[in-house]
Amino acid sequence: MAFMQITISPRGGEGTSVGDYVAEIHRYLKSQNLPYELNDMATIVEGRAAELYALARKLHEVPFKMGMKRVYTTIAIDDRRDKTVHMGDKVKSVQKRLRKR
Amino acid sequence: MAFMQITISPRGGEGTSVGDYVAEIHRYLKSQNLPYELNDMATIVEGRAAELYALARKLHEVPFKMGMKRVYTTIAIDDRRDKTVHMGDKVKSVQKRLRKR
Amino acid sequence: MAFMQITISPRGGEGTSVGDYVAEIHRYLKSQNLPYELNDMATIVEGRAAELYALARKLHEVPFKMGMKRVYTTIAIDDRRDKTVHMGDKVKSVQKRLRKR
Amino acid sequence: MAFMQITISPRGGEGTSVGDYVAEIHRYLKSQNLPYELNDMATIVEGRAAELYALARKLHEVPFKMGMKRVYTTIAIDDRRDKTVHMGDKVKSVQKRLRKR
Repeated sequence: MAFMQITISPRGGEGTSVGDYVAEIHRYLKSQNLPYELNDMATIVEGRAAELYALARKLHEVPFKMGMKRVYTTIAIDDRRDKTVHMGDKVKSVQKRLRKR
Repeated sequence: MAFMQITISPRGGEGTSVGDYVAEIHRYLKSQNLPYELNDMATIVEGRAAELYALARKLHEVPFKMGMKRVYTTIAIDDRRDKTVHMGDKVKSVQKRLRKR
Repeated sequence: MAFMQITISPRGGEGTSVGDYVAEIHRYLKSQNLPYELNDMATIVEGRAAELYALARKLHEVPFKMGMKRVYTTIAIDDRRDKTVHMGDKVKSVQKRLRKR
Repeated sequence: MAFMQITISPRGGEGTSVGDYVAEIHRYLKSQNLPYELNDMATIVEGRAAELYALARKLHEVPFKMGMKRVYTTIAIDDRRDKTVHMGDKVKSVQKRLRKR
């Protein structure tokens, strides 16, 4: 199972705030069946690598469909196939460690 | 005000799980006076650019102090000086837009 | 046309140096028909967004095929559809500006 | 010794092309004593971690000094303290491996 952290930035466009693109991207995400979470810097999605790359490809097109001419996308994928981890597990594990000490 | 998204990965080390480093990094973060949040892929910190770069520098040293020989750190800083935004504002703004439609 | 900057890091594996994975990744790249360039931190590939995402997906699997259990991949895609840019254009344009002054 | 890969993107500004900022950033880099290299996606600088973080901090301010109100900076630092590597070593090592086979 893998996590993808993705940030999509339209560049050089006028008249539409970045928030409009983020909202449109989240409308698309909602229509998919993968757990996801928005934070102040990125969106995190949980899934298998093949699903995540296909999703990234689709999300990258959203600002172009809204009229943008340039998009800058950054992605980090952490993919481990030795054990199953789910969204929120890491935070819980760190909090546990912090309490122990 | 700016946000920093930071991920610190010790590389090639044995015997200590990544979680131990993340926990140590969070102990350091707790001793600072900047709002922060951990998620499954990164830590996000709010502050002025000067504070965030100084903090990144300190956090980067944590795994070396724990005996690691190689560290890979990725950082994204979104710094806007035209308006004040705080942690959580972006999520709220997107949720508002999604409800409207 | 777009550029992709990609870094693929196997995590937690022993006995095989990172260079072996990078070499295998480059063998794969050579078999494709897209211009690419290796530097000290990443590989840069030029192509259309659809090609680049498909390629990233393939390259991400290389270390798993070599026996790794965990892979961390970071990608940045700069995609502009208003004009055609090719590998090396940006460097030339900056050098031109630097000479002018 | 470490390598830093840095990309600085002014956001939302008009009238000045991104190339002008990149050129100004390179004028600053030239005045420093660290080896660096520009490619189509980022600038790579070689130095000790302390130098690289201090430099990143300075470069991040360049677009603000030119009148920008928002800057988005991404950084990756690969820092190994077990052996000395210099700019270009990785490329040579991969090429050597590719020739061998």
